[in-house]
Amino acid sequence: MSAFNQPLGGNDMPRFGGPATMMRLPGAETAAGLDVAFIGVPMDHGTSNRSGTRLGPRQIRDESRMLRPFNMATGAAPFEHLQVADIGDVPVNTFDLKKTVDIITAHYRGVLAHGAKPLTLGGDHTLTWPILRAMKEKHGPVALIHIDAHADINDTMFGETVAHGCPFRRAWEDGCLQNDKVFQIGLRGTGYSPDDFDWARGKGWTVVQAEECWGKSLVGLMAQVRAKIGDAPVYITYDIDSLDPAFAPGTGTVEVGGLTTWQALEIIRGCAGLNIVGGDLVEVSPPYDTSGNTALIGANLLYEMLCVMPGVPQKPSRFSGLTF
Amino acid sequence: MSAFNQPLGGNDMPRFGGPATMMRLPGAETAAGLDVAFIGVPMDHGTSNRSGTRLGPRQIRDESRMLRPFNMATGAAPFEHLQVADIGDVPVNTFDLKKTVDIITAHYRGVLAHGAKPLTLGGDHTLTWPILRAMKEKHGPVALIHIDAHADINDTMFGETVAHGCPFRRAWEDGCLQNDKVFQIGLRGTGYSPDDFDWARGKGWTVVQAEECWGKSLVGLMAQVRAKIGDAPVYITYDIDSLDPAFAPGTGTVEVGGLTTWQALEIIRGCAGLNIVGGDLVEVSPPYDTSGNTALIGANLLYEMLCVMPGVPQKPSRFSGLTF
Amino acid sequence: MSAFNQPLGGNDMPRFGGPATMMRLPGAETAAGLDVAFIGVPMDHGTSNRSGTRLGPRQIRDESRMLRPFNMATGAAPFEHLQVADIGDVPVNTFDLKKTVDIITAHYRGVLAHGAKPLTLGGDHTLTWPILRAMKEKHGPVALIHIDAHADINDTMFGETVAHGCPFRRAWEDGCLQNDKVFQIGLRGTGYSPDDFDWARGKGWTVVQAEECWGKSLVGLMAQVRAKIGDAPVYITYDIDSLDPAFAPGTGTVEVGGLTTWQALEIIRGCAGLNIVGGDLVEVSPPYDTSGNTALIGANLLYEMLCVMPGVPQKPSRFSGLTF
Amino acid sequence: MSAFNQPLGGNDMPRFGGPATMMRLPGAETAAGLDVAFIGVPMDHGTSNRSGTRLGPRQIRDESRMLRPFNMATGAAPFEHLQVADIGDVPVNTFDLKKTVDIITAHYRGVLAHGAKPLTLGGDHTLTWPILRAMKEKHGPVALIHIDAHADINDTMFGETVAHGCPFRRAWEDGCLQNDKVFQIGLRGTGYSPDDFDWARGKGWTVVQAEECWGKSLVGLMAQVRAKIGDAPVYITYDIDSLDPAFAPGTGTVEVGGLTTWQALEIIRGCAGLNIVGGDLVEVSPPYDTSGNTALIGANLLYEMLCVMPGVPQKPSRFSGLTF
Amino acid sequence: MSAFNQPLGGNDMPRFGGPATMMRLPGAETAAGLDVAFIGVPMDHGTSNRSGTRLGPRQIRDESRMLRPFNMATGAAPFEHLQVADIGDVPVNTFDLKKTVDIITAHYRGVLAHGAKPLTLGGDHTLTWPILRAMKEKHGPVALIHIDAHADINDTMFGETVAHGCPFRRAWEDGCLQNDKVFQIGLRGTGYSPDDFDWARGKGWTVVQAEECWGKSLVGLMAQVRAKIGDAPVYITYDIDSLDPAFAPGTGTVEVGGLTTWQALEIIRGCAGLNIVGGDLVEVSPPYDTSGNTALIGANLLYEMLCVMPGVPQKPSRFSGLTF
Amino acid sequence: MSAFNQPLGGNDMPRFGGPATMMRLPGAETAAGLDVAFIGVPMDHGTSNRSGTRLGPRQIRDESRMLRPFNMATGAAPFEHLQVADIGDVPVNTFDLKKTVDIITAHYRGVLAHGAKPLTLGGDHTLTWPILRAMKEKHGPVALIHIDAHADINDTMFGETVAHGCPFRRAWEDGCLQNDKVFQIGLRGTGYSPDDFDWARGKGWTVVQAEECWGKSLVGLMAQVRAKIGDAPVYITYDIDSLDPAFAPGTGTVEVGGLTTWQALEIIRGCAGLNIVGGDLVEVSPPYDTSGNTALIGANLLYEMLCVMPGVPQKPSRFSGLTF
Repeated sequence: MSAFNQPLGGNDMPRFGGPATMMRLPGAETAAGLDVAFIGVPMDHGTSNRSGTRLGPRQIRDESRMLRPFNMATGAAPFEHLQVADIGDVPVNTFDLKKTVDIITAHYRGVLAHGAKPLTLGGDHTLTWPILRAMKEKHGPVALIHIDAHADINDTMFGETVAHGCPFRRAWEDGCLQNDKVFQIGLRGTGYSPDDFDWARGKGWTVVQAEECWGKSLVGLMAQVRAKIGDAPVYITYDIDSLDPAFAPGTGTVEVGGLTTWQALEIIRGCAGLNIVGGDLVEVSPPYDTSGNTALIGANLLYEMLCVMPGVPQKPSRFSGLTF
Repeated sequence: MSAFNQPLGGNDMPRFGGPATMMRLPGAETAAGLDVAFIGVPMDHGTSNRSGTRLGPRQIRDESRMLRPFNMATGAAPFEHLQVADIGDVPVNTFDLKKTVDIITAHYRGVLAHGAKPLTLGGDHTLTWPILRAMKEKHGPVALIHIDAHADINDTMFGETVAHGCPFRRAWEDGCLQNDKVFQIGLRGTGYSPDDFDWARGKGWTVVQAEECWGKSLVGLMAQVRAKIGDAPVYITYDIDSLDPAFAPGTGTVEVGGLTTWQALEIIRGCAGLNIVGGDLVEVSPPYDTSGNTALIGANLLYEMLCVMPGVPQKPSRFSGLTF
Repeated sequence: MSAFNQPLGGNDMPRFGGPATMMRLPGAETAAGLDVAFIGVPMDHGTSNRSGTRLGPRQIRDESRMLRPFNMATGAAPFEHLQVADIGDVPVNTFDLKKTVDIITAHYRGVLAHGAKPLTLGGDHTLTWPILRAMKEKHGPVALIHIDAHADINDTMFGETVAHGCPFRRAWEDGCLQNDKVFQIGLRGTGYSPDDFDWARGKGWTVVQAEECWGKSLVGLMAQVRAKIGDAPVYITYDIDSLDPAFAPGTGTVEVGGLTTWQALEIIRGCAGLNIVGGDLVEVSPPYDTSGNTALIGANLLYEMLCVMPGVPQKPSRFSGLTF
Repeated sequence: MSAFNQPLGGNDMPRFGGPATMMRLPGAETAAGLDVAFIGVPMDHGTSNRSGTRLGPRQIRDESRMLRPFNMATGAAPFEHLQVADIGDVPVNTFDLKKTVDIITAHYRGVLAHGAKPLTLGGDHTLTWPILRAMKEKHGPVALIHIDAHADINDTMFGETVAHGCPFRRAWEDGCLQNDKVFQIGLRGTGYSPDDFDWARGKGWTVVQAEECWGKSLVGLMAQVRAKIGDAPVYITYDIDSLDPAFAPGTGTVEVGGLTTWQALEIIRGCAGLNIVGGDLVEVSPPYDTSGNTALIGANLLYEMLCVMPGVPQKPSRFSGLTF
Repeated sequence: MSAFNQPLGGNDMPRFGGPATMMRLPGAETAAGLDVAFIGVPMDHGTSNRSGTRLGPRQIRDESRMLRPFNMATGAAPFEHLQVADIGDVPVNTFDLKKTVDIITAHYRGVLAHGAKPLTLGGDHTLTWPILRAMKEKHGPVALIHIDAHADINDTMFGETVAHGCPFRRAWEDGCLQNDKVFQIGLRGTGYSPDDFDWARGKGWTVVQAEECWGKSLVGLMAQVRAKIGDAPVYITYDIDSLDPAFAPGTGTVEVGGLTTWQALEIIRGCAGLNIVGGDLVEVSPPYDTSGNTALIGANLLYEMLCVMPGVPQKPSRFSGLTF
Repeated sequence: MSAFNQPLGGNDMPRFGGPATMMRLPGAETAAGLDVAFIGVPMDHGTSNRSGTRLGPRQIRDESRMLRPFNMATGAAPFEHLQVADIGDVPVNTFDLKKTVDIITAHYRGVLAHGAKPLTLGGDHTLTWPILRAMKEKHGPVALIHIDAHADINDTMFGETVAHGCPFRRAWEDGCLQNDKVFQIGLRGTGYSPDDFDWARGKGWTVVQAEECWGKSLVGLMAQVRAKIGDAPVYITYDIDSLDPAFAPGTGTVEVGGLTTWQALEIIRGCAGLNIVGGDLVEVSPPYDTSGNTALIGANLLYEMLCVMPGVPQKPSRFSGLTF
């Protein structure tokens, strides 16, 4: 028996019962004493097309009930090595987006002060900027692995600087990022001009468009990402719309021709060995997720981030021995 | 053939084709020359529970395609007496609710300057306050027929004065209302204290809770409402959540034990003869409206408002002669 | 044990298993030897707004699996008095509506030749005209109890004489109806002119608009209907859109302010004692019936028609003795 | 500020955030110190048609987030008078229904030993039998107010004595009920014979079929119920399928022609003054509840049960003064 | 600023507002003055399994609101080189499929007379035959790139020659096609005999079954297609059911094992350089498209067709420089 | 014309009509005279997360209506070589899982006694154990091709030995399997320890985790599987959750990163030449399958199993001749 918090098991309570916390973990009031804290940021007032991500944290938690503690592919057993809990939601101001970003920064400042690493259940992508501000205060500029259909580097949207299409422009302005260690993977779709992606390239960021990924394993890509990041502190931000809508229908700004879930798993599993300081999973919109599977996939990707946290050993499972 | 704009008929274009304007009416750039203007206000950043009303105007227009020009029950033939068009949407600022209310007021100021009466497709209920501000500039304080599950008279929500639970508090503060001619019908549910409804009573407003309506015809109620309003300019604001969720599942802040659609029709048809200066239909949330029927009902109620506009004769249809 | 076909019981096979016939009754190739035959007419090419009724017969049969043999309210036990089976679907021509109506008439001519009374699972309302043609050949003109949101007496739709808005105009032209014994109940909504309903009145038909029914028991109405029909052969045609969309969301041409299911039950139960020669339940559109409940209600109404067939005794259940 | 637990308010945390407990109340490990305990029983292996009620407790809790502490209609303020918490779910044995009923009885024995009154979130109706067994141990036989479409008094289903159609037969066999104080309200639909309802009548129970309720206020009915029950301990069991499927589509054994939500509210509010010892709300099936509204209504009815618990004063709100 | 029509931008109107035209482009009464015209053909009476495609044009337009003007992958900026508008729907005869095909041909004859190239929003696949008839009048026989799960070359369906399974048999009979330049890609599933595909091979058409595409890039395939077509006028007809149902659930005649969206994009982008004279996107069925994503993908594919129209330069975006 | 049963064709009855048997084949009371029997096992009381598979057989049959007799890819024409019928459902005991497994074994013993090979429509995966018991009685231990996300080899779940996570542990205990000829393909996700998969490896089974399959053709894998199985009797058990949820959303225990439908087809088609003695398709859960496509895919996979039954010749279709 581990000394750490454990997810409530299916042999103690049916999976469809028990607390609706992340992975049915114990809840906690604060991040004190935690290695990793799951946190919800229930918001959608930064979204520009379909809304609904305000219910993302609730549905991700609900659908996370299937997750068992051991990673059958990578051999990670995070709950044997880390103290983890669900510390609930950030009380965002639903009626004022600008105030909300400050509430988020303050909240994460508190989490980081406890020495816990946050894994965030979004919520729309606006939330990553205020988290990165808090990260900078703690760690200085960070490396960034950003998986998304969109670059989210608009200067403004509808004249506003705070919106789900702007977080990485703001983070750059605030000096939150190590520009030679920023990777944007999965970008695609339509835009206003080449600069929608090239602005980032001009700053030294590496942009891997979805077309470059089609039909390929991303294991090799991640090897190069790891080599370039080295031991810098790195933040992972995973926008569920990076996935093709076949895999993640429940989101608001859908673009065709995206990543597969196996590529998503290759990306996150490929972060093992990095000095990860936090991560988020954003843009799950339950009203458009009629089966609940988008939230379930989001829950899995957050679990996979947990599995590659520093301090969690990797022991990949055996292959079949067949060759094909 | 009428000299006025006519809805595109089902014998000219299948009902599932043609323009997705309100009732498949001609669109117009402005309200110039119109007696009545249908306007959309696509917003949900004032909502406090489920979002999605930002898509309300689009879906109401889409489902309005079934509406034919003549009212079989009341004999109203509005398109023989009024020039009506769909003048599109107000370009609200999705990322800033406070700016949005000013955009709305300015937009309606323009519409009213043309002498047109607005019928608004919401959008969340925040929008009624800025419309009432424009109404006051044009007409002075107005009478109000407010059908809703909620009083929407909160001083603040989450500390904010602009939210979908506050519009009538704000309108009262701004002197937009004739307090002895304000009627709130259908209120119910849970709250924080008796004052949630009694504040309005203290201002002289008439509050008719849903419980008082259960199982009754509202024809008699409306006779009294008409008598009290007389010839004052009157604004109708219809929150679709006044209906029991059986009748209008597609909305965000659901309360049980509400009105029926036949009561809703009795209320709006009971406004015939009043000096109506505008109206709105708010809080249709398409993501929760899986059949589209909530939007369709909303479209019908807007049509019924058109049918009771000043200048439209009422010629009720014949009864069967059977007694039961 | 009855000598007649019995629905497969829930103690012999779980209700979610067994054959997907109407009420899990035995199927039959033809109507030979039957008192009553359930028949499907899978079609939607007569619909003018949303389609999907082509799948109505399949879904009504599927959801009919809950139906047990005994009517708890009326005491009817139809399977103790009538030989009933499901004789499958009419092979309509999906690509040609005009040929379809002739296929239907021919098919029902065959059913009626066996002496069976048809209860039809629609399908769109176009189908009632060809059935009435066959009825006339067998019975001469019939009385008609027509429950619907629409009069369905258009001369043409989009220039065509065969469509789901025209069947009773065609039936009238063909002399299928006893005009003083035609009752249209539940009509409402929007139209093109008063004549949309008054044409029928001019022919001597009784039109009971929905507004006349709101909030009332229809027991008294049906007493008058029975008195006027006497012992004439009578056909019941039930369009599910007569119900308010709260009760029957899954249909294509929705009108607000309709009947309740208890009124629907009062109407059909109020037909007991009449010389019913057949009936249909039309316009269930499964794609818009996300819970399956519209089809389930349709199945119940067909069962209630079976319960009032000549030869089935009525023994209403006891009241509680409480007065309220 | 009350000394009792309070639901987390919408001004402290957006309604779509915060813990997914009932009404966002504090959770508790046991019922110690509680006046009333909300408990979930996540099960559907007693269902005979559609399943899915295993997820009922989770969805009822989720949708209960809209509930504020004060009852606007009755003036009840339960959290000023009672200590209430959500004590989580009973760990039922999903793969063995017979073991599950014993687990439930044992669990409720523990709750009752703490002196708390349980309000249960179901789960299928099988659960009421084991709860009544525990109730009898504590209180002796109880009065029963049972609102349902079905009598649930089958001797067996598919040869089994434990199933969701049998709980009240079992409770009667076990001597759990005061037979002259048992009321079954809302029964209807199809069955196998008159005895499906008459067996209960033969035992002295009062059966009020749905037909007897159609179109009526049930205030008078409840006055008679209260008079007959007097001060006997009374248990309320509310099957959501008592409601017409228009009001509660998300359930598994649907019957047409049911109660309205206003009748449901009249029933529960009409229990004020009784010596209520517990209650349950069963048969919400989330997979068939596409809008979430059935769960939301279930949450409201549980809240209304809380509002009529002994010790909660009733102060009905004012009427409008209008007569209609 | 371009002299051409531009889609309404997200900084001028929220994406969930504004006109529900294709890409929120200006509407136009006719194709006069246009290089490319988007046209809707709202029909489903040619479908043989699930219906609903009649609402395809409306939903494709609605979901096209996300599309911005610039193609991030290919560098195409079509609105800088072409005058494009949405010219609304063809008024098909819903009740007569045979008349409908003649209405369509006449309508497209008019469009082509203006010199505009049509991009069509379907509607079921029957519509391609009448369009090809008009194409032949203008251009003589055309090359055809046909992406589909089905060959659609049946001689008859249910004895009828006009149906969604027959258009290319009819077009061949009418001499509309250059047989050595016809490519059918994605065919699969079940049929009646080998001839279901081999008939086409016998005519000289190239049939690329889905199995041949599995797991491959189709860039090489399209190079060969381009080489064979040369500068012949070519029409693209894209049936959304060519995609695997994972990618396009909202359609009526689903076949497993289909194309991916990245293959679809490779196909259409691979048409750059060809002399494209028109295209269509058919078989989106909104009732089966619960998230709206199938329509959104359809909108994207139509946009991609616009991006490869003659006159639109291609400037592919930069690769990351990483190798994997 | 074949002497064997044929599926009802689309030219005789529209695909949305006709009997809701598997592929619209004739039904039969027993397996007498059949080469292959389709059988439904409507159950979900073995499921541990979402339920709903009890309706799997009904929905698979319903959606199988699209299937035509000839396999366009493989050239298989099973109805020219085998006598096939749908023999309906096993009357499982819904309220007792342990009795259910015995009912199933007895039922299949009867089927096998007739010499028919069963193809089963599930139902949850618990059902495979009792089928394998009957198989062993007939054939001795069998080879097993098991495609699934889960190993289903738990010793117990919640202390119970009968559950959908245990069938292959039970079958192993009962000596039903040839351990060197057991293949588990597609396993993945989370578990409790490495032994969740390694237990099987320890018994000599071959485990091919999903990760090993990502992005590959499985043709080569199946060649090795065939070589290892040789002419042993082999049973195929296909859990629909082996597919990635993008391809099969409608199931209860979802795991990300699964197989594609083309891989599924490669697996089953790769069984041609084996001595297949039966197969099943399990875990389709209609309530989570909003489009019906998961059931449709399940129906296709069952059809593909039929196509590789001994006695059905394979004649693959021609390739295009293009190289890419």
